[in-house]
Amino acid sequence: MEKIAMLGGGSWATALVKILSENGARVDWWLRAKDDVQHLLRTRHNPRYLSSVQFDLNLVYPATDLADVVEEADWVVLAVPAAFVQPVLDKLDRDALKHKKVVSAIKGMLPGKNQLVTDYVAERFRLPRTQLGVIAGPCHAEEVALEKQSYLTIGSPDAALAHDFCELLRNRYVRAHPALDLDGIEYCAVMKNIIALTGGIAHGVGYGDNFLAVLVSNAVQEIRRFLQAISPLARDLSASAYLGDLLVTAYSQFSRNRTFGGMVGRGYSVKSAQLEMNMIAEGYYAVKSIHEINRKLNVHMPITTAAYRVLYEKVSPQVEMELLKEQLR
Amino acid sequence: MEKIAMLGGGSWATALVKILSENGARVDWWLRAKDDVQHLLRTRHNPRYLSSVQFDLNLVYPATDLADVVEEADWVVLAVPAAFVQPVLDKLDRDALKHKKVVSAIKGMLPGKNQLVTDYVAERFRLPRTQLGVIAGPCHAEEVALEKQSYLTIGSPDAALAHDFCELLRNRYVRAHPALDLDGIEYCAVMKNIIALTGGIAHGVGYGDNFLAVLVSNAVQEIRRFLQAISPLARDLSASAYLGDLLVTAYSQFSRNRTFGGMVGRGYSVKSAQLEMNMIAEGYYAVKSIHEINRKLNVHMPITTAAYRVLYEKVSPQVEMELLKEQLR
Repeated sequence: MEKIAMLGGGSWATALVKILSENGARVDWWLRAKDDVQHLLRTRHNPRYLSSVQFDLNLVYPATDLADVVEEADWVVLAVPAAFVQPVLDKLDRDALKHKKVVSAIKGMLPGKNQLVTDYVAERFRLPRTQLGVIAGPCHAEEVALEKQSYLTIGSPDAALAHDFCELLRNRYVRAHPALDLDGIEYCAVMKNIIALTGGIAHGVGYGDNFLAVLVSNAVQEIRRFLQAISPLARDLSASAYLGDLLVTAYSQFSRNRTFGGMVGRGYSVKSAQLEMNMIAEGYYAVKSIHEINRKLNVHMPITTAAYRVLYEKVSPQVEMELLKEQLR
Repeated sequence: MEKIAMLGGGSWATALVKILSENGARVDWWLRAKDDVQHLLRTRHNPRYLSSVQFDLNLVYPATDLADVVEEADWVVLAVPAAFVQPVLDKLDRDALKHKKVVSAIKGMLPGKNQLVTDYVAERFRLPRTQLGVIAGPCHAEEVALEKQSYLTIGSPDAALAHDFCELLRNRYVRAHPALDLDGIEYCAVMKNIIALTGGIAHGVGYGDNFLAVLVSNAVQEIRRFLQAISPLARDLSASAYLGDLLVTAYSQFSRNRTFGGMVGRGYSVKSAQLEMNMIAEGYYAVKSIHEINRKLNVHMPITTAAYRVLYEKVSPQVEMELLKEQLR
């Protein structure tokens, strides 16, 4: 029996625990809040996310002791918010992940470090990249809860690792495919939030569906240019792990990045939009990280640049979208 | 002053007349119904489509005499439904378009002939392909009426023709770019309706947004394979004229193809869905044409094949979507 440690209590972590445990894997599940663990143990439901999903407590072991949860695992799946990766993982001993396979389900970079989650894990725990993988959508966790047909891609430089994790995921409503492109898939998952956020800004300013379609088309080209500069590889960006993931986010009515961008486009300050939403959209950090990484690469990235100027240089969204529209085609 | 003959009274024709006449071109506008012409002459509005748009009758000349409308024109723009191309154009003398540039704004093929509109025009009027062009979106006519920022691509093997027609279109809210790929753009405009229709079927059967994103990603690959077989050319399918046009259709809540597919997916027969909608979605014909063309090419086209089996071979949508999902990734 495969033993998996799941780190994180959000909707995506909850969906993955459902999939993995229903396939018969043992899942030791780390959640930060003692109350949530107790609720899970008492009711078999996560009180906060996908609360309709019921877990089999012969396979799922919720707990708050991180070292304990990780200790026996073959696989460690990271599904905490990007901002918590470092504070959470830094509690672990540097050798704690030594012979484990680590798969990231996080769609963001370490704030302040402009570093991919897998790069941080490799550095901090001295792991070779062949022990690392990434899970990509397109996949709303809410649709997993409803058992709607979904597709996942596992990216890893180790084909066997990707293959094996796909096996753990496949079921009646999940199809999973392996891919070798760890970095490209992880960067794309970060950048799609920038596009959803910028789509929100444009919508907030008054642009319509014609413009959004052009924005997303140009986004594919912008992502392709960036990936070729930072991690050159022959990759087809129309694959589900790239384009599909971008679409499910950019066209989602429920995307927090789109909602946040929409408020900024309608004239809210960044601060008041964040207060109003009671959270910070991941795309907000992604814009800064990708923009700063690109200072060295100098790739033509009109969409990311426009978002950066609006969010970090207080340029008016109207003015910035006017400038952006001239650069798209 | 450029003289343009616009053929067709639908929403897309109406939007193009607005753009062209506002730029100072003379537009002789052929509409089939005498009542509509009289209403236009009396009120300066098209009673049926985009009725908020007011026309300048010093530049726009609505009329029902086709030969008359075409006679003095430098440009002939085709914007009738694909099913009416042949009956309408066959009324014209074979030399009627001799020295004219003909631009198609039609997103469909000649029913029963499996022929692109521009191929039919070239054959029937003995025109060289360098006198032909095509207008591609992504562009909802309704957003043109609202003067929302839109992008158009003009495809023609004659770079000068494409360039010149772009000049006629560009304004405050329309950006236009030339391209050399006449066939690819025209086929893609046809095939996007197949994808929107199939997305509707999947939605009707109960598939969600995760699946739609995968369907559209795979559609880009299916379109690419088909275009490479029928009209090999180095083309970037993430350009707005291809991907953007696909997105604006596949993600539109108002797409007739999606609505029609949705009814079929929910169990309506093709006949009753058509009766209920009081019209036939263009994708219905496109599925048949592309499927039949592909009998010779033998390209792997799981999406088009699935739609064909549901619409023309009465396979259950549930069964067919189950088979389709196995072929996507």
